[in-house]
Amino acid sequence: MKIAVVGGTHGNEFTGVEVCKALEKSQQSYKNEYRTFIANPMAHLKKLRYVDSDLNRAYSKTSSPLGNEKERSDFLKAEIIGKFDFLIDLHTTTSNMGSTLILTDTNPKTLNAACFIKQNFPHYKLIFAASGDDPYYTTNLTKAGLTVEVGPIANNIVKASLVLDNLDIVRALLNYDFQTEFNYAEFEVYSEIDKISYPEKEGYYIHPDLEGKDFEILKTGDPIFIDACKNTINFEYAGHELVYPMFINEAAYLEKNIAFEICEKIKLSEVLGS
Amino acid sequence: MKIAVVGGTHGNEFTGVEVCKALEKSQQSYKNEYRTFIANPMAHLKKLRYVDSDLNRAYSKTSSPLGNEKERSDFLKAEIIGKFDFLIDLHTTTSNMGSTLILTDTNPKTLNAACFIKQNFPHYKLIFAASGDDPYYTTNLTKAGLTVEVGPIANNIVKASLVLDNLDIVRALLNYDFQTEFNYAEFEVYSEIDKISYPEKEGYYIHPDLEGKDFEILKTGDPIFIDACKNTINFEYAGHELVYPMFINEAAYLEKNIAFEICEKIKLSEVLGS
Repeated sequence: MKIAVVGGTHGNEFTGVEVCKALEKSQQSYKNEYRTFIANPMAHLKKLRYVDSDLNRAYSKTSSPLGNEKERSDFLKAEIIGKFDFLIDLHTTTSNMGSTLILTDTNPKTLNAACFIKQNFPHYKLIFAASGDDPYYTTNLTKAGLTVEVGPIANNIVKASLVLDNLDIVRALLNYDFQTEFNYAEFEVYSEIDKISYPEKEGYYIHPDLEGKDFEILKTGDPIFIDACKNTINFEYAGHELVYPMFINEAAYLEKNIAFEICEKIKLSEVLGS
Repeated sequence: MKIAVVGGTHGNEFTGVEVCKALEKSQQSYKNEYRTFIANPMAHLKKLRYVDSDLNRAYSKTSSPLGNEKERSDFLKAEIIGKFDFLIDLHTTTSNMGSTLILTDTNPKTLNAACFIKQNFPHYKLIFAASGDDPYYTTNLTKAGLTVEVGPIANNIVKASLVLDNLDIVRALLNYDFQTEFNYAEFEVYSEIDKISYPEKEGYYIHPDLEGKDFEILKTGDPIFIDACKNTINFEYAGHELVYPMFINEAAYLEKNIAFEICEKIKLSEVLGS
């Protein structure tokens, strides 16, 4: 197997860049071949998520990346598509997500690799968030792959604990036998349902009772927003019994007016039907 | 007393901007007159600390602010100097500082106001960090003033709890009788001693044992840095018995290669001699 290890798809998320540098420096060899990529050096230099458009939305047939990210996505397509079998894309979030793996496709290699990590690093949570019929994530450059998303960490800083934690799982995947098969019914994933926007009326923030409560059950009637006069807005969402929030107060989602996402917990075997 | 309440001196620190907006919206009246200032609207719009140079270093005789910040500092000088008696400058940090007040001068109005807040909001810590003979902070636009610095919070996000906490102390100061006197010997401050740089050799991060431990005692021999191979570097600093770190892993200090600052704990009465 040939694995692409990608850091800095978002330039202000430093952890993945440091993981790539550390892998290069150590020059250790592994069961699988690999190459590291600093995906967006100019955004990293400028300490920005992106320069002209989001590189982690650039890879569908209908994506129209702009300027610097057009150039970078063309480069990465040329270097990765058809040349690598699996891609690990390293991200961070300002929300209190802990250590997570995001599955962006249902390729058996993706599902088994996620089970392998969950079995050996049980503090990792699995999230299922495929991008539909026309997939656009960096991980979609290869047939199979995983996004690693860790938090909370502010943009433009590095925490040693996260670099070391990420290095552990990246090295485990570089040594993983991709023929190994797991029983998907034994693993649970948080499956993305919807994105919750900020209220139309200005001046509302995430309620302190919700802040930092990623992956804790969110019930109808729980306060989710508050303003400076302490007016609150409560959670209402029809059609799902048990809902779990994630990406609560993620800095990058503000420009899209997203306050958090919600998911349900299902068996990994069930995502195959979705 | 006339008080200037300043938010957004650093454009990517959103809390102060929201506090100013909330004050304006509520139109409440207080014992002291006040006016709010969004110090650096362009940096705030661009979600950057500053556009051309740091606005919170712009106010000494020898400061040479650049471009946008030259314009903004000229504007704020014209609007504030001689027209206001006290300034509250609202900041955030990515480090685990909790709620703090930074004293940047030894004017009795500054010292007494700090004691007043400490007495009524005991979770606030006091930090003494005057900028020498040629003071350059935004707070130095008036003869007396306080910098509010709260964390941890990632840049470009708002936490309701911090907005409400800041609003509480700003409102308390707007209603404070600036004639009140306190016994400075009864109050302790963390007094800045030095800034600790990252090691010259690349690839070292704050050690996980130090991460988040702002204001906890740091002893000679304690690990402070680690690299991806888990090599560590320990703390060594001559001449001070008890040292407390702060601003550990502050994102904005990376460009100056500062890993954290150290201070000692002294009586507020002692800063008058320093």
